[in-house]
Amino acid sequence: MNKFTCVNDLSNLDDALKLAFELKKDPYKYQTLGKNKTMLLVFFNSSLRTRLSTQKAALNLGMNVIVFDINAGGWKLETEMGVIMDGNKPEHIREAVPVIGKYCDIIGVRSFAGLKNREDDYSEKILQQFVDYAGVPVVSLENATRHPLQSFADLITIEEYKTKKRPKVVLSWAPHPKALPQAVPNSFVEWMRKTDYDFVVTNPEGYDLSPSFMGDVKIERDQMKAFKNADFIYAKNWASYSEYGKILSQDKSWTISDRQMAVTNHAKFMHCLPVRRNMIVTDSVIDGPDSLVIQEAGNRLFSAQTALKLILDQLK
Amino acid sequence: MNKFTCVNDLSNLDDALKLAFELKKDPYKYQTLGKNKTMLLVFFNSSLRTRLSTQKAALNLGMNVIVFDINAGGWKLETEMGVIMDGNKPEHIREAVPVIGKYCDIIGVRSFAGLKNREDDYSEKILQQFVDYAGVPVVSLENATRHPLQSFADLITIEEYKTKKRPKVVLSWAPHPKALPQAVPNSFVEWMRKTDYDFVVTNPEGYDLSPSFMGDVKIERDQMKAFKNADFIYAKNWASYSEYGKILSQDKSWTISDRQMAVTNHAKFMHCLPVRRNMIVTDSVIDGPDSLVIQEAGNRLFSAQTALKLILDQLK
Amino acid sequence: MNKFTCVNDLSNLDDALKLAFELKKDPYKYQTLGKNKTMLLVFFNSSLRTRLSTQKAALNLGMNVIVFDINAGGWKLETEMGVIMDGNKPEHIREAVPVIGKYCDIIGVRSFAGLKNREDDYSEKILQQFVDYAGVPVVSLENATRHPLQSFADLITIEEYKTKKRPKVVLSWAPHPKALPQAVPNSFVEWMRKTDYDFVVTNPEGYDLSPSFMGDVKIERDQMKAFKNADFIYAKNWASYSEYGKILSQDKSWTISDRQMAVTNHAKFMHCLPVRRNMIVTDSVIDGPDSLVIQEAGNRLFSAQTALKLILDQLK
Repeated sequence: MNKFTCVNDLSNLDDALKLAFELKKDPYKYQTLGKNKTMLLVFFNSSLRTRLSTQKAALNLGMNVIVFDINAGGWKLETEMGVIMDGNKPEHIREAVPVIGKYCDIIGVRSFAGLKNREDDYSEKILQQFVDYAGVPVVSLENATRHPLQSFADLITIEEYKTKKRPKVVLSWAPHPKALPQAVPNSFVEWMRKTDYDFVVTNPEGYDLSPSFMGDVKIERDQMKAFKNADFIYAKNWASYSEYGKILSQDKSWTISDRQMAVTNHAKFMHCLPVRRNMIVTDSVIDGPDSLVIQEAGNRLFSAQTALKLILDQLK
Repeated sequence: MNKFTCVNDLSNLDDALKLAFELKKDPYKYQTLGKNKTMLLVFFNSSLRTRLSTQKAALNLGMNVIVFDINAGGWKLETEMGVIMDGNKPEHIREAVPVIGKYCDIIGVRSFAGLKNREDDYSEKILQQFVDYAGVPVVSLENATRHPLQSFADLITIEEYKTKKRPKVVLSWAPHPKALPQAVPNSFVEWMRKTDYDFVVTNPEGYDLSPSFMGDVKIERDQMKAFKNADFIYAKNWASYSEYGKILSQDKSWTISDRQMAVTNHAKFMHCLPVRRNMIVTDSVIDGPDSLVIQEAGNRLFSAQTALKLILDQLK
Repeated sequence: MNKFTCVNDLSNLDDALKLAFELKKDPYKYQTLGKNKTMLLVFFNSSLRTRLSTQKAALNLGMNVIVFDINAGGWKLETEMGVIMDGNKPEHIREAVPVIGKYCDIIGVRSFAGLKNREDDYSEKILQQFVDYAGVPVVSLENATRHPLQSFADLITIEEYKTKKRPKVVLSWAPHPKALPQAVPNSFVEWMRKTDYDFVVTNPEGYDLSPSFMGDVKIERDQMKAFKNADFIYAKNWASYSEYGKILSQDKSWTISDRQMAVTNHAKFMHCLPVRRNMIVTDSVIDGPDSLVIQEAGNRLFSAQTALKLILDQLK
């Protein structure tokens, strides 16, 4: 594998899943694979799970790790081509990316959607610069439209906890005080479509995800109906795609509570974190026995380690 | 040892001291003990000595180290239970702590007292969340009411430089422009009470430390009297405990100067650093031949390495 | 070598160059030399290339690395002697430096010129504190008046790409929206004077560099004349030395463009980066086939690795 920016970068999802479980059983099995290899993590945005789990994953494989919060310790980057750089951005991404690539063997990069301009975000301007010009393999640490390390960890978690071959999995929109990107739900949909789960998305009108991600996935407007007999509830907020970046609803009846969970098949509760308690989900549900949010976050280590292992195999 | 948050976590202080001196003589003696173990340092507040010495200590033991400035690179944490999270704090400590614990083998955490609410600070709300929910051993990197790695280094330093079996050690309050926590003096008192030193605390009225830390330790209001024949002067500012968090005095006659040092028994001068020169102590004293502040800071490496060694022994 | 703060710290420049090319061919040749040695990088200012390349260089030599953004994670430092520290700077550099030296084997330090006080900047107040008090070897990561790791990488690059024994090398001032230090051009001049290249500096009136750096290097006021038959163009902005720290010109006729490059001998274009496009240099030149800026940045890894190798040899 020479990059990991979406599910299609995996040549075989089943094999990747098998490797993930193998690494979970024995995290130090390939502890010398990454000798003399350096993973460089570039953050344009905040990160807890991705930052820490990807570092640990690289260390488990014997790699060195360099973390770079580019806006804190580096120079503010210009990303437009052809401009006269007489403002407050001293460095152009066109130099920064190939230069960073000179000092490492794999780059991870996080850059969130700006939510101002849909075309810009959905063209993955920043991620694409890294893929095109870094000269080394690139791993998405969440970019404008996808968060594949999260979705892979979500899949690992469902595989780990499912009690039937074909569970019902529901992705539910939930309210939030701020406008959030669509990267996590887009990616989750993209990965679920690779499975044969009974997969449903439920969201209020105006919140349908991009058709290019949704394809023929079923949208159910009635949240209670969607939850009926569900085995896994995946909650997430996102801002509108059609009225791009807008908050159209903060309807708390969509907050995941015991009322909705009651109609499920003792469904497991999932969320990528960080989560706004009592906005996205009530304390009672997230603190209850069916909440998997910590285990799911724990699996971030193994989705990352799997992706890095597959890339290192290729670098050898 | 399965945590290090106060002196009582050490099963045997004498053995710990012996180990510290053994490590000081041969810092790489246990250089493979920490193989495939990761130390994760979480900072809610600034740090120089603790940040750098604890990293070096972990590296000397062959551990990997991840440093996480949670307010810079992570998400602002909500620490209250039961709230509706619709403000500017996207993540709850109740998720953050167990998740961080998934990505490492030992957590170090620094979170200073807020000095607004004594009950909150003295209940060690944040440290306790880590101890209760991290799932891995926790080391205090200074928390609301204690700084055990500092006090341990202080003890190592006194043991190294004392010229009599039972030296006279004086903890003296000194003035400062800002309100400071009681963690360092609380901890210093707690550790000194484990020794048979002649130990005295001197501070102005209104500055007595918490009775739970002080026990029957002697308080001497007259600083000059306290200093008479002292072998070690430990200077520190702290805000009032009784009028919690308040600055009641900035009396510069308490600044440690040649005048006070003259009545001691050629006492060594100590301070945890950072130190406000010519507020806490005059240039002449801190730059003089009896100042141990750099050596004391150097011993931070060995207090940290000892604590980590004792925890790693248990993890094996 | 017991420090690396200017070209004269190298006992033999030719040998250092040979070592750099040896390391470029086989970066892991000395991968155990730095075992149990820790490199500590202290940044007072932003950094991309220096931060990342120096980390990678130390890792390639088997060292551990600790990165410390002192103004972000540490305490604001007082640098004046004799002051009463009752302001917003809690720590004095006089303690910070020897303490940092206790936790590592080599210190790298970056602190830019303030451009307010020429005497202060040219006395290298901060770097000199590190050299005098750290107790361990110090490497300049760019300080007030020099950037030796950059100049060494520049020399490596010229040696790599020159097609004649004695190329013509031109250092050209170019316009910039902000006042910049003279560290890079000073250093470049200092290193070029160690070669037998045909070396010329071209800058507008008022922009002559310090005579102590320039010595008898030729200054050509007519940029086009300077560029005639040049083999390497090294572009850089700097603020005035004589009217210290002032911007006296932003004349865009000095921006390096195809017009000036046309009179050269197919000169290679160099710049230390970050570079303001269409201020310092046009897109057409920097994106053209004769631009070496990425290769030059890549050589930062080998100038750093050479310097660290030479210091480690001495530490053994």
